[in-house]
Amino acid sequence: MNIQSVLELIGTFVFAMSGALAVGEKGQEHDWFGASFIGFVTAIGGGSLRDVLLGSYPLVWVQDVRLLYIILAGIVCAGLFYPFVIKLRRTFQLFDTLGIALFTIVGTEKAIRLGFSAEVAVIMGMFSAVMGGVLRDMLTNEIPVLFRKEIYASACMAGAILYLVLYDLGLERNTTFLASVIFIIVIRLLALKYNLSLPKFGRHPKQL
Amino acid sequence: MNIQSVLELIGTFVFAMSGALAVGEKGQEHDWFGASFIGFVTAIGGGSLRDVLLGSYPLVWVQDVRLLYIILAGIVCAGLFYPFVIKLRRTFQLFDTLGIALFTIVGTEKAIRLGFSAEVAVIMGMFSAVMGGVLRDMLTNEIPVLFRKEIYASACMAGAILYLVLYDLGLERNTTFLASVIFIIVIRLLALKYNLSLPKFGRHPKQL
Amino acid sequence: MNIQSVLELIGTFVFAMSGALAVGEKGQEHDWFGASFIGFVTAIGGGSLRDVLLGSYPLVWVQDVRLLYIILAGIVCAGLFYPFVIKLRRTFQLFDTLGIALFTIVGTEKAIRLGFSAEVAVIMGMFSAVMGGVLRDMLTNEIPVLFRKEIYASACMAGAILYLVLYDLGLERNTTFLASVIFIIVIRLLALKYNLSLPKFGRHPKQL
Repeated sequence: MNIQSVLELIGTFVFAMSGALAVGEKGQEHDWFGASFIGFVTAIGGGSLRDVLLGSYPLVWVQDVRLLYIILAGIVCAGLFYPFVIKLRRTFQLFDTLGIALFTIVGTEKAIRLGFSAEVAVIMGMFSAVMGGVLRDMLTNEIPVLFRKEIYASACMAGAILYLVLYDLGLERNTTFLASVIFIIVIRLLALKYNLSLPKFGRHPKQL
Repeated sequence: MNIQSVLELIGTFVFAMSGALAVGEKGQEHDWFGASFIGFVTAIGGGSLRDVLLGSYPLVWVQDVRLLYIILAGIVCAGLFYPFVIKLRRTFQLFDTLGIALFTIVGTEKAIRLGFSAEVAVIMGMFSAVMGGVLRDMLTNEIPVLFRKEIYASACMAGAILYLVLYDLGLERNTTFLASVIFIIVIRLLALKYNLSLPKFGRHPKQL
Repeated sequence: MNIQSVLELIGTFVFAMSGALAVGEKGQEHDWFGASFIGFVTAIGGGSLRDVLLGSYPLVWVQDVRLLYIILAGIVCAGLFYPFVIKLRRTFQLFDTLGIALFTIVGTEKAIRLGFSAEVAVIMGMFSAVMGGVLRDMLTNEIPVLFRKEIYASACMAGAILYLVLYDLGLERNTTFLASVIFIIVIRLLALKYNLSLPKFGRHPKQL
């Protein structure tokens, strides 16, 4: 079992948690089946979209059934953690940040290994990370997380580009992987802490 | 023409009806093209998602153009039935229940026949049944049906599991198919009649 | 570089513009990354869905990275045009109309060339054209454009059918292509100008 598999498992676990927790965080009421469904879609949505767009079959979770049990474990953990999460609102954001960082680099790496271009690899890395959450938000009628104000998908894109640069420089693979993941986490946490955001689109310079 | 094809045709027909009827049921106004579009997406959405996730090409309706005419017939029927549906609100739910029951087992069986695992077959059966309706609800800006209170996707999952158990026990295939379909219909109708629901997720036991 | 590639590039460019402009047109605030993301999804969404449903890999933009730079150019143009767009509300609709007309015929032609049936080709042409916009509207929590009152997807379907009729009649290919594109543009612009719409679905004749 290589490091990519392990990190994909961890990412899947925290995404399943974040998906199920999102239900509570948003003040909506779902039964446990609905919460599990959302946890499942959050966990597999981004990677599935990536694989479908690349035509890379079978999908990761279709081939490796362990992922389904990891997701189930994540959902159960989310249910157990739930009373604490109400008090510790940041827990959800931390899990989500870890999830997007891991999934970005796992997705970027997969696209590169399959022989796709750097541009496609960056997009696929970003999609792997954010599209599960976008589906979660669309299913719960929320405005997708990547259009709210903090830096989110852009942090993933920056990390994917860093990965490709380090990869081109010929750095050792695990170092490359780890550095890119940490880079995304740091950008995202700084953006959350200092409420950083990108300039608005189409705002006339004089209006600023 | 085998029984699976016949049941897929019937399921497609009732799903197309339920999709087009949903427009009226929800008090929204669509032109007939928009209603047909929603009927079409409702009818083919779940099965298409299943086949795309499995990488099973060509999709059923791409290969078998008759399905498109069945969908058209379902939409025309929905238009003709429309004045009665306003009075008979349950008609919509009955068609929808028949549709999800048939599609669950058709989808589960297809995944098993293609050699996928039992876990994947259960998910694909459930997706075949509910994802058309989820797409319908997303297109019409509704909260997806599977997150409203009654037992819905969970009934499909229970039926898919029953199918796999009976299949493993070696029962005759048509019996297995029919028993699982009826099982889903019964659970769903009981849930509607007695307003049954599953426990809420994350509710602290002491809060109950 | 054949005519289909050129028209696909133009269609992609105007769709990227329309996607990014939609953000402003709808009075929502997005940062430039979010606007770019929506422009990108609008531009590639319909064609990607078509190719995924047909199982035609690799996807156009995955294979031809130039499309990504065309999209980027479209988004930058949209940003530059932005102050004018506020005054010229119709600009958005013109770009969108050009985009759906080109994408409908490009999509219809592709499906026919790949050997699919006429019915499937019409649906795929229509999906190529409108599904990018549907995804854009779902991401921004809007009611999808094709369910608002003017003739929209139905114009695309009419154009796709015209293409197939002219194609069957054996007309020269570029003439067929151009005539069908212009047909869609004319229908759509007439519908906008005279506020044309199709009959409502399910309205009892006596109610009219």
